[in-house]
Amino acid sequence: MKPSIDPWGKGEVKDYGRLMEEFGLRPFDDFIKKLPDPPLLIRRGAVYAHRDFERIHSAIKSKKPFAMMTGLMPSGKFHLGHMMVAQQIVYYQSLGAHVFVCVADVEAYNVRRMPFDELRRTAIEEYLINYIALGLRPKSCTFYFQSAHTVPYYRLISMLPRRTTQNEFEAIYGTFDPQKLISVFYQIADILHPQLPDYLGPLPLVVPVGVDQDPHIRYTRDIASRINEFRFIPPSSTYHKFAKGLQGGKMSSSDPTSYIALTDTPEEARKKIMKHAFSGGRDTVEEHRKLGANLSVDVSYEYLYYLFEEDDRKMKKITEDYGSGKMLTGEVKKFLSEKLEKFLIRHREKREKAIDLVPKFLEK
Amino acid sequence: MKPSIDPWGKGEVKDYGRLMEEFGLRPFDDFIKKLPDPPLLIRRGAVYAHRDFERIHSAIKSKKPFAMMTGLMPSGKFHLGHMMVAQQIVYYQSLGAHVFVCVADVEAYNVRRMPFDELRRTAIEEYLINYIALGLRPKSCTFYFQSAHTVPYYRLISMLPRRTTQNEFEAIYGTFDPQKLISVFYQIADILHPQLPDYLGPLPLVVPVGVDQDPHIRYTRDIASRINEFRFIPPSSTYHKFAKGLQGGKMSSSDPTSYIALTDTPEEARKKIMKHAFSGGRDTVEEHRKLGANLSVDVSYEYLYYLFEEDDRKMKKITEDYGSGKMLTGEVKKFLSEKLEKFLIRHREKREKAIDLVPKFLEK
Repeated sequence: MKPSIDPWGKGEVKDYGRLMEEFGLRPFDDFIKKLPDPPLLIRRGAVYAHRDFERIHSAIKSKKPFAMMTGLMPSGKFHLGHMMVAQQIVYYQSLGAHVFVCVADVEAYNVRRMPFDELRRTAIEEYLINYIALGLRPKSCTFYFQSAHTVPYYRLISMLPRRTTQNEFEAIYGTFDPQKLISVFYQIADILHPQLPDYLGPLPLVVPVGVDQDPHIRYTRDIASRINEFRFIPPSSTYHKFAKGLQGGKMSSSDPTSYIALTDTPEEARKKIMKHAFSGGRDTVEEHRKLGANLSVDVSYEYLYYLFEEDDRKMKKITEDYGSGKMLTGEVKKFLSEKLEKFLIRHREKREKAIDLVPKFLEK
Repeated sequence: MKPSIDPWGKGEVKDYGRLMEEFGLRPFDDFIKKLPDPPLLIRRGAVYAHRDFERIHSAIKSKKPFAMMTGLMPSGKFHLGHMMVAQQIVYYQSLGAHVFVCVADVEAYNVRRMPFDELRRTAIEEYLINYIALGLRPKSCTFYFQSAHTVPYYRLISMLPRRTTQNEFEAIYGTFDPQKLISVFYQIADILHPQLPDYLGPLPLVVPVGVDQDPHIRYTRDIASRINEFRFIPPSSTYHKFAKGLQGGKMSSSDPTSYIALTDTPEEARKKIMKHAFSGGRDTVEEHRKLGANLSVDVSYEYLYYLFEEDDRKMKKITEDYGSGKMLTGEVKKFLSEKLEKFLIRHREKREKAIDLVPKFLEK
């Protein structure tokens, strides 16, 4: 039987509610108000579910050590979708988390058959530099490559095979081949190794993921409980919505008309918004004035909502005016484009400064 | 289909000739005279087959760099069977080989479910100390644990999954499970990593194995040819007979009545020979005098032949006298016991001195 979520699949999710029920996730709402100064995307509900986030929240509240782990697959341009994850990384770091950022180059090498040197270049030039520009700091950050980490990490990977079976693996992933198996073992170690005695020891750790990655989380938690040499605390997880691509669907590095890259020029970005951003506006101005825009499918509106309009009052006004038809798609796109242009210009400056910090991340 | 040799099986081989034909091995005879001062077991033909040994021989002849790789599974006592491998290691080292000795603790951890610390203790106390006592020197030797080696080694392991498929693996090993897969990937890297640029670079390398390990050799050679990042020279291999257990069959660490351990006291060893060593002598003295001993099944005779009677003239005399019935089993056993006692007493002294050298092997 093919499992209903496939971490190697496209990851478009239609019904978040059903998913949460099926996999025992719990709504994140309650934590939004409890978290100190959350970033826009958390404040507006882009992080919608969790598993065991209580542990993380209580560590934050009592200023106890905790960690955050995330992985990146270095392919293509760093875009707004990646930024949504980066903002969470930076936020947790600001709250005191030790942040582990894993470059999944072993997975990319095996599953996507990309060469290590190209993966390394992309990881640094596209991902790391943008993370730094978005606020990531070298202190309390372990940025590493799966292909070049530490002996305790590899030793942990070597301890995983006897904790599982072919049957279990197939039941979770719907397949069992050498490439997937290795990728999964690396991912499990990515999530668990911060708790090794050589690192921070057992502590609460949160992994922010898209729901398509939940099989990894569940499998990792199960396997962690079977390793008797260490006392792993089951990792917590949060689930964020996927950034919509310009034309709806998922934002994807492999389709330039689906994304705004953080290295797009302001002009490129404006053109993409104007030309490609899927609109919830109606076919004619007349109809639009009467019915208002369909906000739930409007991509420009969503970018403003989760990423670019910090001011709740202004956002509320856009929601009312665009939703009622008073505001037209062209006006919303123009408004977003201006915000985006400003952001990209500032981000470009930050990227230039960020380059100096790169060695600080790599020297560890 | 179950393959006809199973590296995880018992490894009793009835027909070496058939095996050589089936797997394209070539007879080792020609090299015996060409090799400088070979140890007894090579001189007497216990190493009977090879693949690509020409490369090793010409490196030896022209004093060019070459390497030898061997693995050990640290379980139980170090016995005469292990000594046959150790003698080859020491010999190749004396010829100028850089020697890699791998403790297969990741395999033992996963397949035999033994804890790392116990594996480490056994590897050092049983194997390493006996190797040293038998002549292994720290210079030109890399003694390492699979669970605690180097990043380039682990990186090489991570590059293997995309070079194979589930089907290929199953065709070779008759099974495909996470434990076996990891064990095999580690073994392939064990054999290939000496040729990495971080180590010695491409060079001739020989792996002395029992024929039951040949699937690993063939698979490693195939996979090496598929890795385009490095120019591996296909590893060479030699094939030695298994040391017979005291009662025939295979000498096995799990059955104390099957082996002479190198830490057995002279008395224990003598008793084991007298009591357990399978005899090719006849049921009655009368019959024995008439027919002579069946040398091909006589275990004491075999130990003398491959391990303890260096003098060809004396060995010839024993062969004649025992084979003709002039010599009785009791006499042969007594003769072997005396040799063995002397050897064990000297070996014990050497072991005591060997302990001082252990840190030299482990510090690297």
